[in-house]
Amino acid sequence: MLNGVFMLIAVPFSLYHQEEAYKGILTGGIVTIAIGLLLYFFNKPTSTNIQKKEGYLIVTLGWLILSFTGMLPYLFSGSIPNISNAFFETISGYSTTGSSILTDIESMPKGILFWRSATHWIGGMGIIVLTIAILPLLGIGGMQLFMAEAPGPSTDKLHPRISDTAKRLWLIYVILTFSEFFLLKLAGMTWFDAINHAMATMSTGGFSTKNDSVAYYNAMPLVQYIIIFFMFVAGTNFVLSYFALKGQFQKIFKSEEFKYYLIGFIGLTFVIATIILFFQNPDLETTIEHPMIYGKVESAFRHAAFQVISVITTTGFVSADFTMWSFFATAIFFSLFFVGGSAGSTSGGVKIVRHIIMLKSSFLEFKKALHPNAIIPVRYDEKPVNQTIVFNIISFFIIYMLIFVVSSTILTLMGLDFISALGAAGSSLGNIGPALGSVSPVDNYAHLSDPAKWFCSFLMLIGRLELFTVLILFSPFFWRKN
Amino acid sequence: MLNGVFMLIAVPFSLYHQEEAYKGILTGGIVTIAIGLLLYFFNKPTSTNIQKKEGYLIVTLGWLILSFTGMLPYLFSGSIPNISNAFFETISGYSTTGSSILTDIESMPKGILFWRSATHWIGGMGIIVLTIAILPLLGIGGMQLFMAEAPGPSTDKLHPRISDTAKRLWLIYVILTFSEFFLLKLAGMTWFDAINHAMATMSTGGFSTKNDSVAYYNAMPLVQYIIIFFMFVAGTNFVLSYFALKGQFQKIFKSEEFKYYLIGFIGLTFVIATIILFFQNPDLETTIEHPMIYGKVESAFRHAAFQVISVITTTGFVSADFTMWSFFATAIFFSLFFVGGSAGSTSGGVKIVRHIIMLKSSFLEFKKALHPNAIIPVRYDEKPVNQTIVFNIISFFIIYMLIFVVSSTILTLMGLDFISALGAAGSSLGNIGPALGSVSPVDNYAHLSDPAKWFCSFLMLIGRLELFTVLILFSPFFWRKN
Repeated sequence: MLNGVFMLIAVPFSLYHQEEAYKGILTGGIVTIAIGLLLYFFNKPTSTNIQKKEGYLIVTLGWLILSFTGMLPYLFSGSIPNISNAFFETISGYSTTGSSILTDIESMPKGILFWRSATHWIGGMGIIVLTIAILPLLGIGGMQLFMAEAPGPSTDKLHPRISDTAKRLWLIYVILTFSEFFLLKLAGMTWFDAINHAMATMSTGGFSTKNDSVAYYNAMPLVQYIIIFFMFVAGTNFVLSYFALKGQFQKIFKSEEFKYYLIGFIGLTFVIATIILFFQNPDLETTIEHPMIYGKVESAFRHAAFQVISVITTTGFVSADFTMWSFFATAIFFSLFFVGGSAGSTSGGVKIVRHIIMLKSSFLEFKKALHPNAIIPVRYDEKPVNQTIVFNIISFFIIYMLIFVVSSTILTLMGLDFISALGAAGSSLGNIGPALGSVSPVDNYAHLSDPAKWFCSFLMLIGRLELFTVLILFSPFFWRKN
Repeated sequence: MLNGVFMLIAVPFSLYHQEEAYKGILTGGIVTIAIGLLLYFFNKPTSTNIQKKEGYLIVTLGWLILSFTGMLPYLFSGSIPNISNAFFETISGYSTTGSSILTDIESMPKGILFWRSATHWIGGMGIIVLTIAILPLLGIGGMQLFMAEAPGPSTDKLHPRISDTAKRLWLIYVILTFSEFFLLKLAGMTWFDAINHAMATMSTGGFSTKNDSVAYYNAMPLVQYIIIFFMFVAGTNFVLSYFALKGQFQKIFKSEEFKYYLIGFIGLTFVIATIILFFQNPDLETTIEHPMIYGKVESAFRHAAFQVISVITTTGFVSADFTMWSFFATAIFFSLFFVGGSAGSTSGGVKIVRHIIMLKSSFLEFKKALHPNAIIPVRYDEKPVNQTIVFNIISFFIIYMLIFVVSSTILTLMGLDFISALGAAGSSLGNIGPALGSVSPVDNYAHLSDPAKWFCSFLMLIGRLELFTVLILFSPFFWRKN
């Protein structure tokens, strides 16, 4: 029903611009609300006591229902008539991936563009609650560890705790989105572009209202700096943003994950800026319509910072095409596809904290090889980490990489070349957006075959839901009676 | 000293062909034996009780001394005058990788070619003892698990057990090498080519005496079938070959690793043969000098089986260029770069048993998520596996992949394009040989810059020594006093 309400919000944008599309969006909204009402009245739960198995089903099916209703405005308005395209664009929205099949974004009706950005923003809302309040209870991928300090009343009762945590974090999400919106407007964006880019930033989505993404604003550095700042915030654990707004800054700098996130962002920005300044490709200026002033230090640092934070946070906004910055830069960015932002943020991918724990655990092996009888736990945030959680995390990573390898191979079978397949699989699974080869930052996903589009949609879904939530439904254990 | 003796064995080959190179090889042999004698007489150990830390040092330094003396014949004979090239070729030999910087192998002196194959064979000998008798005692990468059943007297004393195991397995190695040698001769190879290819097969090395590698024998299918069979055997745990020769076949088919190895080989051969038959690239015939009869079923299966087993066992012989068999085939072969043969064989890479345990452990997470309080161990060969060993194995894999990612990135900085860097890093670390892009199966490593050659040499060394043996020397824990 909420999904339908957001569609109705998109209607005035179309009416204001006198677009025919408003009919399709309105119909979509009414149908979606109707489906919601039907489910609400005819499917009353007999008990509010939700079992673990039901939890997995609710999350996965909820996301699918969202996606199947979310594509109605595209289909009904005729702006994306093909169902494979419409589904791809919708799930790319909700999963906050930002891959697009649109070849001319600026020719789309404004109402549709607003709805497109709204799918990001709704997806981001869903993810905050999912990762901070629900997944830790389901015991998935070590999530119980990252969320130990989620704000909210300490109670064993599931329901009030989830609602309370959700409300507090959503408030932060709304405040941050509005702040970015106003700042972007002040910096010179139109009202419409500002609201859309704010929604796409805070959800780490990456849909832009411009064909050239944020490269359109290459003559407006302030706009790009504002987006860089909010991408960084969107990739930070929302629990930390909550503490920041409450003035408890010491909690932020105590967070090990935040430290690595900040240092990594700054360090990589320096490395990439150096590459741009010294090893630039002379063909570069022709690749993006809006020329960039290369060789200038400010511009190099801005574009380096933009692309680094855009890929780490899995936003996928583009201010320049990183695949043109030497093979070294391409290799670094491709590695970053597998990093991800902070746990408890709206970013996708593996997440920084998982890497920290995995690497700490692996390097401890050197110590263990020399002292085989010593018991040496991994420490995170100065506390020892339970071995079970370390296992959770490592298993998550192994399955993540296995899916990446298998799905890259499958994509080559669906017509992609080797590099593009690697890129599309890594980018879809990590909910990033732009990738390599034929799906590079200045290309789009329109040329993919229908099976490849559905396959990438599936990857976006399982990546967004931390793999296990979806994949467990395919495991024999799930369907066995206890 | 043994190394020097092998050099002397190469001398008659040069004398027989009236090559000047015999002088260089002879000098190399004498110098190497002299160094050995010096170390032997002036560096008498004060105690035969070897500590763990000394074990790591002995293995790594031993391998380095082998490599630095092993390049003397190349340098002294002038056949490879450049030291970066000579070191690369030597460590590629001892590590049984088989990457070459030679652009015209057939023009090299026969004595040098024999020495080149001998480095493979010596390396293979070293690896058998290392993985079956020494590394399990050092507790590296879960090796203690795979080697539980190594033949030899059950005794707690390290020294007699290692020597006895080593002697038995070396005997198998020698028997198998001679068997292949005679069969290849019977199938029509020259004496010289037969002995060289036998040494390069059993060590899973892959140096050939022909510019076109085994594609030279495309008109002699029997030769290729013999090599396929012995590559398969070389990629099998030598402990199993030992049982086979003793007639205890039930032990072989009880081995879980062997089952997956056999099934994987057959399954992948079918998949690749299908690709060759139905999706072949029409440009293919021009890529290898000796034409292949494509579209014919026997030929497709032979070349599929050859390339599959050559990459899985990390041998690296080439009967055709798999990078020409569609992107799908390339993606499959690139994935196989990270599989490796069986533990306790001469093959490199991650090894099949590690994948079995890692995947079993990861998939158990689904079961654990539903039954959080149950204790469910990973089972291998019908026995539960100690959690510590599972951790050893997973950590090995994570560090392996980390090194792969970092070193691919470093190689792009040394002038390789993205695909070639991925290929060269994966191939060097896995001790395979042929890779992708500019280092594809029909290319060689001659065009790499000197830093890239030294870097690949380092990767071959650490890959061969199961990472930890070398890397632990760089860890602070190693140099700390207990």
